[in-house]
Amino acid sequence: MSHRIAVLPGDGIGPEIVAQAVRVLQALDLPLQLEEAPVGGAAYEAAGHPLPPATLELAKGADAVLFGAVGDWKYDSLPRELRPEQAILGLRKSLGLFANLRPAVLYPELAHASTLKPEVVSGLDILILRELTGDIYFGTPRGVREAPDGAFTGLREGFDTMRYAEPEIRRIAHIGFQSARKRNKRLCSVDKANVLETSQLWRDIVIDVAREYPDVELSHMYVDNAAMQLVRAPREFDVIVTGNLFGDILSDEAAMLTGSIGMLPSASLNEQGQGLYEPSHGSAPDIANQDKANPLATILSAAMLLRYSLNLSAQADRIEQAVRTVLAQGLRTADIYQPGDTLVGTRAIGDAVIQALK
Amino acid sequence: MSHRIAVLPGDGIGPEIVAQAVRVLQALDLPLQLEEAPVGGAAYEAAGHPLPPATLELAKGADAVLFGAVGDWKYDSLPRELRPEQAILGLRKSLGLFANLRPAVLYPELAHASTLKPEVVSGLDILILRELTGDIYFGTPRGVREAPDGAFTGLREGFDTMRYAEPEIRRIAHIGFQSARKRNKRLCSVDKANVLETSQLWRDIVIDVAREYPDVELSHMYVDNAAMQLVRAPREFDVIVTGNLFGDILSDEAAMLTGSIGMLPSASLNEQGQGLYEPSHGSAPDIANQDKANPLATILSAAMLLRYSLNLSAQADRIEQAVRTVLAQGLRTADIYQPGDTLVGTRAIGDAVIQALK
Ligand SMILES: CC(C)[C@H](C(=O)O)[C@@H](O)C(=O)O
Ligand SMILES: CC(C)[C@H](C(=O)O)[C@@H](O)C(=O)O
Repeated sequence: MSHRIAVLPGDGIGPEIVAQAVRVLQALDLPLQLEEAPVGGAAYEAAGHPLPPATLELAKGADAVLFGAVGDWKYDSLPRELRPEQAILGLRKSLGLFANLRPAVLYPELAHASTLKPEVVSGLDILILRELTGDIYFGTPRGVREAPDGAFTGLREGFDTMRYAEPEIRRIAHIGFQSARKRNKRLCSVDKANVLETSQLWRDIVIDVAREYPDVELSHMYVDNAAMQLVRAPREFDVIVTGNLFGDILSDEAAMLTGSIGMLPSASLNEQGQGLYEPSHGSAPDIANQDKANPLATILSAAMLLRYSLNLSAQADRIEQAVRTVLAQGLRTADIYQPGDTLVGTRAIGDAVIQALK
Repeated sequence: MSHRIAVLPGDGIGPEIVAQAVRVLQALDLPLQLEEAPVGGAAYEAAGHPLPPATLELAKGADAVLFGAVGDWKYDSLPRELRPEQAILGLRKSLGLFANLRPAVLYPELAHASTLKPEVVSGLDILILRELTGDIYFGTPRGVREAPDGAFTGLREGFDTMRYAEPEIRRIAHIGFQSARKRNKRLCSVDKANVLETSQLWRDIVIDVAREYPDVELSHMYVDNAAMQLVRAPREFDVIVTGNLFGDILSDEAAMLTGSIGMLPSASLNEQGQGLYEPSHGSAPDIANQDKANPLATILSAAMLLRYSLNLSAQADRIEQAVRTVLAQGLRTADIYQPGDTLVGTRAIGDAVIQALK
């Protein structure tokens, strides 16, 4: 039986980095059926919409989606619903990809790349688990209106609704505890329960779910404090579970702690184990088509794809090991290059990973 | 004419650090009328409420409020409306303290205290301007209810309302541009306009206000990117203006970049120039009453009080200069102590500041 993988390269460096990940997958000689479709700005240009129906159907019918990146300054003046980012929001919602796994891992060879002192970050290995289909991202009502009440009644106001229903909190909490179980058994739930009602319910439910995982140590932290502790002592975290908005902010902060965001993959899963896999970094249009981009985050995303959606852990391990080998060989793309390393391009580092797989 | 200052020491280390700031103010020989009242957990114990009417009246009638810190684990089981933090939310709202100024400054003598590399943070001097009376902190409706619609209709959900009316955005934007004008003339407005309607209105209004400040360079950044850039290259910022929730997170992250949060003051101002002044750090109940706490953030908050609410800039400069002198003398409380420094207690460093004033 062959696995169907939708390949959505997107904009900027997306096509280049996805091309390398595809080559790596093909080198494994697995029964994979890869089908490509446009997404983001590329899809807007080809079909008038960042997430055309054909692309969405392909993604829905696939076992997993390998996603590059979307976005480019040149689409900034489009109305919001046509902008490239809407494709990623649409895919998350349509596929029900509620669990976003964003590891922040600092490879020993790249410890220098961090702006933090080595003694603070070396060996960093945290997993941020971000709820991805709820919260203020999708809550209604939202819009711009005349303020119905309060000190500014009748004046123009923008408004959005943060909301989480109990089952949404429960299912991401379960993933949090299960992830912690596979790691160092510590789960930190991040909220703003001293101010927000949504957070208070979040905290109550997480505490309730915790009773099923007595072997996992649960803690709670306010989001402002979490933003501080990530800078102060990031290695004190194991797994962080949080909502969509706080997760957006904290996962990016955590990624930057490593200084090598070009190395960080991500997975977004639904209840059926279908998933979308993409690098944590963006589309970097400024370096597109120059063979400069680092494809390793995308290659590592392909490894996550094998592990989480296709249940091919051994193959995922092989890819991750190959990436480690390449780093040990001193090969680096420009984003992580230091004097003494061997500077290589996108395609050459892809070649090296494939070589190391053998 | 004498100036009325409400002194609210609060909980934990609050009373100790405020005592030193009061001594410093008194040493200036200004016509100040200082009146003290309980707030936070201390007020809950004395009067059954974290912000008793008498305390609120005192604050309202004063030209400025000198605030210590509130909170202690022992109040964690109280219902939310009686918890110490409610005092600070109540004061902000009742006094209309919409403009929160939070400088993140790294003193050259304390560069080692940061977890970031010196070449990334030395000389750091950014101002975070956080809107403080709007946003999801106070927006209604909010609560826990049966979900009215969506995939979880009828199930329990927590919800909150993010909202900003046009005049609220306009007035904080003006403060942002005016602050930038007094500094390096660069203002970065942080929002999440790619997702939130509130942010889209925020961005539109900030752009509109910018037309009155052609000499200030305005940029916009998404909050997730801002959380990253603060870690990557914090010195690229001059003034950041943002909403209440994003400001809560980013101002704490920025404070921690300095590694010396015990040094960072803050001011919260209303339209009449009345203000509340408090250290950026918390109540640290674990070290209360041990003469260990660093009072310099509170002393520097008193300097901001003189500058912003009493228009006594020269006196504010004197205090700030005295703090710099004390640092240059090598005196340090435990939180910023390094081998080679002279370790002193709360009261002794207060003495040293007073000595340096002369
Ligand atoms: C592009 C944007 C809508 C998106 C988000 O906010 O979720 C991005 O920042 C991310 O984290 O994947
Ligand atoms: C105590 C809490 C309500 C408060 C806030 O979130 O505003 C605090 O974190 C702060 O930043 O002053």
